[in-house]
Amino acid sequence: MISLVIFIFSLLLSTSHVVVQDFCVADFEAPESPTGYACKKPAAVTVNDFVFSGLGIPGNSSNIIKAEVTTAFASDFLGVNGLGISLARVDIVVGGVFPIHTHPRGSEVLLVVQGTIFAGFVSSTNEVYTQTLEKGNLMVFPQGLPHFQMNAGSSTTIGFVSFSSATPSVQLLPFALFKNDLPTDIIAATTFLDEAQIMKLKAILGGTG
Amino acid sequence: MISLVIFIFSLLLSTSHVVVQDFCVADFEAPESPTGYACKKPAAVTVNDFVFSGLGIPGNSSNIIKAEVTTAFASDFLGVNGLGISLARVDIVVGGVFPIHTHPRGSEVLLVVQGTIFAGFVSSTNEVYTQTLEKGNLMVFPQGLPHFQMNAGSSTTIGFVSFSSATPSVQLLPFALFKNDLPTDIIAATTFLDEAQIMKLKAILGGTG
Amino acid sequence: MISLVIFIFSLLLSTSHVVVQDFCVADFEAPESPTGYACKKPAAVTVNDFVFSGLGIPGNSSNIIKAEVTTAFASDFLGVNGLGISLARVDIVVGGVFPIHTHPRGSEVLLVVQGTIFAGFVSSTNEVYTQTLEKGNLMVFPQGLPHFQMNAGSSTTIGFVSFSSATPSVQLLPFALFKNDLPTDIIAATTFLDEAQIMKLKAILGGTG
Amino acid sequence: MISLVIFIFSLLLSTSHVVVQDFCVADFEAPESPTGYACKKPAAVTVNDFVFSGLGIPGNSSNIIKAEVTTAFASDFLGVNGLGISLARVDIVVGGVFPIHTHPRGSEVLLVVQGTIFAGFVSSTNEVYTQTLEKGNLMVFPQGLPHFQMNAGSSTTIGFVSFSSATPSVQLLPFALFKNDLPTDIIAATTFLDEAQIMKLKAILGGTG
Amino acid sequence: MISLVIFIFSLLLSTSHVVVQDFCVADFEAPESPTGYACKKPAAVTVNDFVFSGLGIPGNSSNIIKAEVTTAFASDFLGVNGLGISLARVDIVVGGVFPIHTHPRGSEVLLVVQGTIFAGFVSSTNEVYTQTLEKGNLMVFPQGLPHFQMNAGSSTTIGFVSFSSATPSVQLLPFALFKNDLPTDIIAATTFLDEAQIMKLKAILGGTG
Amino acid sequence: MISLVIFIFSLLLSTSHVVVQDFCVADFEAPESPTGYACKKPAAVTVNDFVFSGLGIPGNSSNIIKAEVTTAFASDFLGVNGLGISLARVDIVVGGVFPIHTHPRGSEVLLVVQGTIFAGFVSSTNEVYTQTLEKGNLMVFPQGLPHFQMNAGSSTTIGFVSFSSATPSVQLLPFALFKNDLPTDIIAATTFLDEAQIMKLKAILGGTG
Repeated sequence: MISLVIFIFSLLLSTSHVVVQDFCVADFEAPESPTGYACKKPAAVTVNDFVFSGLGIPGNSSNIIKAEVTTAFASDFLGVNGLGISLARVDIVVGGVFPIHTHPRGSEVLLVVQGTIFAGFVSSTNEVYTQTLEKGNLMVFPQGLPHFQMNAGSSTTIGFVSFSSATPSVQLLPFALFKNDLPTDIIAATTFLDEAQIMKLKAILGGTG
Repeated sequence: MISLVIFIFSLLLSTSHVVVQDFCVADFEAPESPTGYACKKPAAVTVNDFVFSGLGIPGNSSNIIKAEVTTAFASDFLGVNGLGISLARVDIVVGGVFPIHTHPRGSEVLLVVQGTIFAGFVSSTNEVYTQTLEKGNLMVFPQGLPHFQMNAGSSTTIGFVSFSSATPSVQLLPFALFKNDLPTDIIAATTFLDEAQIMKLKAILGGTG
Repeated sequence: MISLVIFIFSLLLSTSHVVVQDFCVADFEAPESPTGYACKKPAAVTVNDFVFSGLGIPGNSSNIIKAEVTTAFASDFLGVNGLGISLARVDIVVGGVFPIHTHPRGSEVLLVVQGTIFAGFVSSTNEVYTQTLEKGNLMVFPQGLPHFQMNAGSSTTIGFVSFSSATPSVQLLPFALFKNDLPTDIIAATTFLDEAQIMKLKAILGGTG
Repeated sequence: MISLVIFIFSLLLSTSHVVVQDFCVADFEAPESPTGYACKKPAAVTVNDFVFSGLGIPGNSSNIIKAEVTTAFASDFLGVNGLGISLARVDIVVGGVFPIHTHPRGSEVLLVVQGTIFAGFVSSTNEVYTQTLEKGNLMVFPQGLPHFQMNAGSSTTIGFVSFSSATPSVQLLPFALFKNDLPTDIIAATTFLDEAQIMKLKAILGGTG
Repeated sequence: MISLVIFIFSLLLSTSHVVVQDFCVADFEAPESPTGYACKKPAAVTVNDFVFSGLGIPGNSSNIIKAEVTTAFASDFLGVNGLGISLARVDIVVGGVFPIHTHPRGSEVLLVVQGTIFAGFVSSTNEVYTQTLEKGNLMVFPQGLPHFQMNAGSSTTIGFVSFSSATPSVQLLPFALFKNDLPTDIIAATTFLDEAQIMKLKAILGGTG
Repeated sequence: MISLVIFIFSLLLSTSHVVVQDFCVADFEAPESPTGYACKKPAAVTVNDFVFSGLGIPGNSSNIIKAEVTTAFASDFLGVNGLGISLARVDIVVGGVFPIHTHPRGSEVLLVVQGTIFAGFVSSTNEVYTQTLEKGNLMVFPQGLPHFQMNAGSSTTIGFVSFSSATPSVQLLPFALFKNDLPTDIIAATTFLDEAQIMKLKAILGGTG
């Protein structure tokens, strides 16, 4: 009689179609939808799709900003596709800074795991919220608001950031403004900046026009 | 050393997969998903996908309702796909009317840019909210509620309507009721209307059965 | 002049692309998206996609749990895809029970249509909410919380359950715990259960390891 | 040592604030939000909030439409508030009909539990989808589309309808059109109906103007 | 017998609680929720809540940027609260510009109703999409991306912008960067701008620190 | 003339109501809504609402499970309210385990920052996905699925977990099953467990009945 249990429970579940939606591991070959990448067929999914080791490697911060970001978005970490969550790692050496930026589609929480970070964001009424964060501290940057992080200590800092989107994007405002092909006069007119300043930063950051 | 900035920022972004989700321009060739059309590959997207000129042309209102609607939904204006917004233009000449209708999946805001419009909606408790609107006035029609717009002045009116969905659909109730193949007795039973009335409107609007 | 109405209304709608999004009947051939199955082309949709007769057939409850569930999820009932709703039928004979389970992605409302059911759920603060339900009674099981249903009367019971998702999944906890290939020591460590108990249930339910 | 388990688990949970969000039982005294009624304090919640017996009572169908609807929306069934699901019961005696109507904010699935129902809906392209439904059949009416149900047999029918919203509203189109205070000429202009027909139905349904 | 219809339909609707959720007109006195302002009691709602005349008045553009924005967000236009849509008007005189800005929580569609506007946005991969727009043209600015609008003609331009949120906020980047109390050295470090440039713009825009 | 810029920009923003929705810091005094806690008035918000230091303190793992969880949910970390994101810290000493559990309303990503963790989840088709995770590794646990984490090394492990909800709740299944007042026979019937096993665990975990 016990064996009937196995039999009947198999029946129970056989009424469901084999395709379930417990997860939607990204498949880059099929077209995207407005809510994310297409899903791999469940049979092709393995535990490797749910695990990501890229954040274990320190970013290369031996550069002028002395900082590096490494992402674990759905485009990198296939298993988070469609789940409304993703992460990234920020390494900032002494004197380094992660420039002012926004995430067009998500809120961020920063966790400091090493060193000291000075971070802040600006609200749409131009209120500034800044704090010096130590190891173990969290700070939330609400959706779409510009924010920054700087090493505020005497040793390398490591932060992990979590997002409320699997595809939050990172938009560095200095890049959006200067590493592009908008003519300098247009940038000047729409930013109040002097043309000389714009041309200087276009040269540094690789903008044209 | 400055040139290192260019180098490192290129590295910063190279860790992201080339496919981003800043937008999802409609691609009609691939299958739709519940949340909209599939996305064109970013490399195929141009500024033309984000611009639409169809609403600049007056609708042809020389007809019996003396009105015309022109849509800029995701099916027309590919760049709004997945963004939860779309527009349309309504031209109504003197004596014209845009019949009572619903949008199954979105709220609407009407902006009058020329002339005078008398508009209204009916709540699910049968409260009627009507107003005569002049140039520059807005009126909101909450999601799913039946509403109408009429020229209430002595010159042609133009309105632009915005929707909280990229695919709101327009369902004209006289069409839903009479331009279909439901048998007349079924329509009578489900609407309280007289069969003669139904047959008259089926003839006018092109219904069968 | 009346015939102009037909003409102009045809024009009205011809400005819309032929593809609308009134519904998204599931097409299992195309890749899924995070929000559900791809959509059949509207021309291929028939009324049969919106109708489902599988819940009219009593489940086979002549088994050890004396219960059977039959689903009308998007994987079975194609027309509900993308609409955030689905149903299932539960048949429980005298002495039968539908084991403790969760739905990872939706809330459930149970409607008793025959017999008496004792049902309950446990909140995340371990509060238990139970009730004996008669024909015509409803009980709601909020999203993600474990719940169960048992025949509490002297005749067969039939219940219909509605979900706030087209793909809620059913996760029977005894199966999640014992009908799997997790090693017995891992299960013991993560559940507080004795290994003997685990091995007994693995044997009954078909687990390995 | 075992008693330490109790101790530590108490600690585990004591770090959470006492207020959780497993559910949001409707509290009509506090102001509503765009997503539903305010929540009762958890301490005031009992199992009665999650159970509803109102659908067990046959509606009174001894009237001219020979039909009655009984709702279990969040306004009636407090426990479904915020959970995106609700139900209603429809009783239709022989010759009865539930008139053409929409739900402004949700899709519906009809389950026939007694008798035979002829039901249908109209898409925004004026396609009609109808079916004769027997006991145990389901039919889905996608969000916002007008639909109707009629007794198509020789005995009383009972249906239960589920919605993908806790507050779907019911908007009977004959009421929206005629049980209101819109002037007859406005209704005529926006519906194509004859004024005599409108005045007749205003008299029957209780409209004014 | 006809009078019975009135009677029974009254009964039909009397089973619903008087409080419905067809709309949620903003009530600023009660606390906000994450999804918007609290709702006025339905009895206090009038048609005036659904109508807004503030966009009919030209903005005062006789200033140095030669532009003005006037909003019809939920904070101004109470009836759109909770409906995921709002509007604004932009007046730009000859030589004027609406500076680069973002909306933290929504996409925007611009409709030009008078004059010529040169507009553009920058994606998170620093692609620039610009276009010269004439009367009747639409351009969409996807969620969260920086964008600008300039008068590109020889007469005053008027644009109306629609948003996919009732509370999109407007964040002018020059203000976020310079009209705040962030110390100049922090701004320099996080933007690559020269301190002299920053101090100049702080003086112009009213920043401190 | 420059001073006019300050003047006009002040005007620009004065058209907005002072209350914005850039964030919704939790206010526990006002009633909750289905989507989270009510919002503090913006004037009362300070940077402290956006910062949380509770995760910097090691949990006390000197107990029988040798593990501790510390939460930074909206109930603890007020600034994440309404933003769809929250975090927690898990400390597990050698031999410790975080028992099998679910989050009723969110997906989780685990980040290992110290030590080695063996973690896994079970899908609704009873597939088991497990992995041994080293420092810097991520693993995602899709919404609603049961999962566990164990120290798999020879030193204390620390993990930080991120959630796609500000109020995900933690539901430890051994507690849901045994630390409650469900009668033992009901638990036995709905879990297949032996009554002796249940009584043993009720005694350990503090259940009654």
